[in-house]
Amino acid sequence: MNHIKAIAFDLYGTLFDVHSVSVQCDEQFPGRGQEISNVWRQKQLEYTWLRSLMNRYIPFEHVTEEALRFTIRHLGVELDERACRSLSDAYLRLQAYPEVPDALRALRDRGLKLAILSNGSPHSIDAVVTNAGLRNSFDHLLSVDPVRVYKPDNRAYELAEQTFGVGRREILFVSSNAWDATGARYFGFPTCWINRGGKTFEEMGQRPDWEVNGLDRLVTLFASANG
Amino acid sequence: MNHIKAIAFDLYGTLFDVHSVSVQCDEQFPGRGQEISNVWRQKQLEYTWLRSLMNRYIPFEHVTEEALRFTIRHLGVELDERACRSLSDAYLRLQAYPEVPDALRALRDRGLKLAILSNGSPHSIDAVVTNAGLRNSFDHLLSVDPVRVYKPDNRAYELAEQTFGVGRREILFVSSNAWDATGARYFGFPTCWINRGGKTFEEMGQRPDWEVNGLDRLVTLFASANG
Repeated sequence: MNHIKAIAFDLYGTLFDVHSVSVQCDEQFPGRGQEISNVWRQKQLEYTWLRSLMNRYIPFEHVTEEALRFTIRHLGVELDERACRSLSDAYLRLQAYPEVPDALRALRDRGLKLAILSNGSPHSIDAVVTNAGLRNSFDHLLSVDPVRVYKPDNRAYELAEQTFGVGRREILFVSSNAWDATGARYFGFPTCWINRGGKTFEEMGQRPDWEVNGLDRLVTLFASANG
Repeated sequence: MNHIKAIAFDLYGTLFDVHSVSVQCDEQFPGRGQEISNVWRQKQLEYTWLRSLMNRYIPFEHVTEEALRFTIRHLGVELDERACRSLSDAYLRLQAYPEVPDALRALRDRGLKLAILSNGSPHSIDAVVTNAGLRNSFDHLLSVDPVRVYKPDNRAYELAEQTFGVGRREILFVSSNAWDATGARYFGFPTCWINRGGKTFEEMGQRPDWEVNGLDRLVTLFASANG
């Protein structure tokens, strides 16, 4: 890893736990929070891919609301407009995984430049990071919004290369989302897959360069490679 | 529906039941056929969208095999190469929904031109339709393969417009896949959603022009509109 000069992190599911919204879901629908959260997240992802393919980009918060609307109709639960908005807002107050703050500090201490590269809108990314007290942990917060297409379209990954101003082989891409790690690797980033839960990597012709079960292990990888 | 001159049908899930492969899955893995078939179909769709976005098209049969490989690893079941190939081949022998043959005949008798517009490769489409004895029911069998991108990319829908040689407002698009019906409607096709199982339509800013619970009801729609 001696050649790595910068790291681009995915946000949702990688640094922040998207299923932390299940607590709010559970308040609205006791006992069904996890189920609602799972369908909602799956649809949110599908809608980013489908809208990108249809060339019908809308900002991530709106995709998130559409996905929630599908979820409540699909599961046959009742939710008024105000509660719907309140649940969508829960995506602005996601919890960081516990090891994340210390790991970011350690990576920066090694002289690495750090960025978030996320499907979220600039407002969403800023809100999530600020609410978690991590605003100063990053050199750049990059949203796909300027290119109006979602990952894994190459134009999304290009944003990180352009912003860091170094070659893509010198930028480590870090994601818990196996489809995102696949896209990043096809783009040309060395890629680390964070697999916290014994998940199965996608079968789309790529494998991650590294696989770890938490961000603290990524710090260890750098330490053992670079001394 | 007086202005409709031609109909383009989706194949998988619309005219043919993709979960008819669950019988073969159940032979390999007794009691788990439906579960395997569901995960497999979901991944197959995801991989068509993701590979399209990554600009990494491979033919549909190969996507189907990759999706199966993910499914067996994800569910922790054992499947050797030969059995894997045999299951993938089951996608070439799907069953048509029971009302389909008569409905196609009735629509053609009204003077409508009929085509399949499918993600499947030319070989797959031909095999499925021929195995079901429906090869002569269509004027055209259209695969997305020449444009090397999957639905709902506009380039896929354009194939039907170009082949029929009439304007898109005169072509009815018929699909059971709500995401496909959404893409077709954004493209500009009048669209009929076949909802056989009380499913939930997607929330991506479109609604189908018509919704019916089987192809026979589509014939009724034409009969009542055109006398």
